[in-house]
Amino acid sequence: MEKPDIVILGAGYGGIMTAVKLQKMLNMNKSTITLVNKYDYHYQTTWLHENAAGTLHHDRTRIPIKDVVNTAKVNFVTDIVVSIKPDKRKVKLQNGELYYDILVIGLGFETATFGIPGLKDNAFMIENINSARLIRDHLEYNFAMYQYEDGKNQGRLNIVVGGGGFTGVEFLGELANRIPELCKEYDVNKSIVRIINIEVESTVLPGFDPQLSEYAMSSLESRGVEFITGATLKECKHDRIIFEKDGKESTIPTYTMVWAAGVRANAILEESGFEHHQGKIEVRPDMRAPDYDDVFAIGDCALIMDRKTNTPYPPTAQIAVQQAETVAHNIKALVKGTDDLDEFQPDLLGTVASLGNSDAIGDVFNNRKLFGLKAVILKKIIDNRYLLKLGGLGLLMRKGKFNIFY
Amino acid sequence: MEKPDIVILGAGYGGIMTAVKLQKMLNMNKSTITLVNKYDYHYQTTWLHENAAGTLHHDRTRIPIKDVVNTAKVNFVTDIVVSIKPDKRKVKLQNGELYYDILVIGLGFETATFGIPGLKDNAFMIENINSARLIRDHLEYNFAMYQYEDGKNQGRLNIVVGGGGFTGVEFLGELANRIPELCKEYDVNKSIVRIINIEVESTVLPGFDPQLSEYAMSSLESRGVEFITGATLKECKHDRIIFEKDGKESTIPTYTMVWAAGVRANAILEESGFEHHQGKIEVRPDMRAPDYDDVFAIGDCALIMDRKTNTPYPPTAQIAVQQAETVAHNIKALVKGTDDLDEFQPDLLGTVASLGNSDAIGDVFNNRKLFGLKAVILKKIIDNRYLLKLGGLGLLMRKGKFNIFY
Repeated sequence: MEKPDIVILGAGYGGIMTAVKLQKMLNMNKSTITLVNKYDYHYQTTWLHENAAGTLHHDRTRIPIKDVVNTAKVNFVTDIVVSIKPDKRKVKLQNGELYYDILVIGLGFETATFGIPGLKDNAFMIENINSARLIRDHLEYNFAMYQYEDGKNQGRLNIVVGGGGFTGVEFLGELANRIPELCKEYDVNKSIVRIINIEVESTVLPGFDPQLSEYAMSSLESRGVEFITGATLKECKHDRIIFEKDGKESTIPTYTMVWAAGVRANAILEESGFEHHQGKIEVRPDMRAPDYDDVFAIGDCALIMDRKTNTPYPPTAQIAVQQAETVAHNIKALVKGTDDLDEFQPDLLGTVASLGNSDAIGDVFNNRKLFGLKAVILKKIIDNRYLLKLGGLGLLMRKGKFNIFY
Repeated sequence: MEKPDIVILGAGYGGIMTAVKLQKMLNMNKSTITLVNKYDYHYQTTWLHENAAGTLHHDRTRIPIKDVVNTAKVNFVTDIVVSIKPDKRKVKLQNGELYYDILVIGLGFETATFGIPGLKDNAFMIENINSARLIRDHLEYNFAMYQYEDGKNQGRLNIVVGGGGFTGVEFLGELANRIPELCKEYDVNKSIVRIINIEVESTVLPGFDPQLSEYAMSSLESRGVEFITGATLKECKHDRIIFEKDGKESTIPTYTMVWAAGVRANAILEESGFEHHQGKIEVRPDMRAPDYDDVFAIGDCALIMDRKTNTPYPPTAQIAVQQAETVAHNIKALVKGTDDLDEFQPDLLGTVASLGNSDAIGDVFNNRKLFGLKAVILKKIIDNRYLLKLGGLGLLMRKGKFNIFY
């Protein structure tokens, strides 16, 4: 190819890592790289639940793009992607249009609300810095309101988390740490605050080993979290939610419903006419879209099957980062005009879910289970490892998590 | 009197200082002192505008009652006063009833809303710790909402302060300091935030020397505050206010109307049948109510005339504290059965209004005017002097303001 235009959409885990790899691998006189992102910062989606609970400031979670992307080598555009026209090799942005020779789609996820009435309008989502910061402030505002209003409104102090998956459970852990601080700040008796989890399955973390799920529930229950399992959310109003369990409907008064029960790929993929499975592009082993040799999909936008188990790989940060290496390598091959495209082979280290600042569970290596302090430490190692990979020692020092009980 | 029951209602400036004086002056075997307050803390009303703006934490403003009142000598009751029956010498509380031989009414002020439609329901007031903390959180919440919502809603970033009196101007000064911090925290461009003051008179601080008023307005304008003088508030809705100026009505979109344009004495005085002027008891020179030899009123509940100028003394903290000395002395005289009652003689030091953390104006001693740093320092000296008087060196060290530009 003669000075190809490489366009990367989205600076999430997959997109930004692809850009960082390419800026090292490619000669800029021979290709042009453009990275497009809605914000001028990258953020670690897996830390947002801490920002939402207010246990970690969002400036720890976000990283200015310019701190990790060399803007002398990569054009950075702050804009919103409106649509992709793969047949014309064009991307429409809110403020312009881009032509590409090679495209990487890393536009991330959206929350899935499954058509549950009122959820989209009244629930809060842990999606990005803006929505996480709003949850933090919404919690504080409702505690302040509780003290200010004449009639004591319990709905101000009931916090409902919808979904006991990974994000839901990690958020519950942070809430369990945060509530005592909020009670002190707002002169509220801790015993009247309720943290309630609603989960459709019979246990939280349904994909995990049952022993780990049980440990997580016990740990959170001991810190005041209530679990309502086997329950389906029916409706979310601004001041209450309605759920069904064992055929019976119940209501919980709450101004704070945080919905963490499902994600789907960015709707732009569907709208742009890509062949998709549940909104995601089922990519070939080399991470390219089935019908387009010049389009890669990555992270939450890509569906890729584990051929050993015949199930899709989970949509985790770990996998997105590893996919970026394959994508970057394959783009280099295309630019050079060789056929030497790699197939994506994940190297799964396992998964660790935090349960607040002093407890965690891990499912690592060959079904080895970790609990408590060891899992807490491993979680921080994983987080720090990513920072090192993305921005080197400087970034690790600025944003890393070094305190075990911070 | 044989072991008289002395009841003090309210632990504001006047009430708590009366209790602190009496616990030193009286022999507890010969009288019983009971202090009643809605909260288990005293707070400095004159610092609340800083808590509301978020420039000072409310824990700096409040002081646990037990830190300054010796509960071995004074019974402290956390309760809300419902009514006073002066003919029966009884006070009805939400959770009980008290009999008194001598009563001190120091129940403070309420915001006057002059029947302006929507003001009571939609405006915020700088009245107490709960309402000030709510304003702080409301400001933050609206900045977060501005970033979260798809359509950018300018009403979230417009802050309207009703009234350019002492509290209004001091709050504007704190806002001018706080807004740049909020902009940083919420990624908002400072130039789009508006701080607007609406004042019915042609200038702010109408009681002050015109040169000082002008200085205050210039100082605040240079930091982005807009003044709309000669304007009357007509209505306050949850998302906008309507005002009239030069016969024309205008609307400002805002979710944050802070009403600082008028106070009146606690409505309990009127409801309990005391003779009153605009809700206050016009006390005799010895601070007693006209019809009751056993009832003292103090602070915002008392109206006392300056016989030299034939105008009432202003309802300031300084005067309330000085009244407490007269009240305590006169209670001691009544207990001892002497006729040696003092007349209240204020020793006015002057008034200093802060304009944020680095500017202030003062009208002190014999019409001496102070501007800038000197006034800032004097303001802090006044604040610290009160703490020393109330709780000695220990309290001053814990709660004092020592940093000139903090």
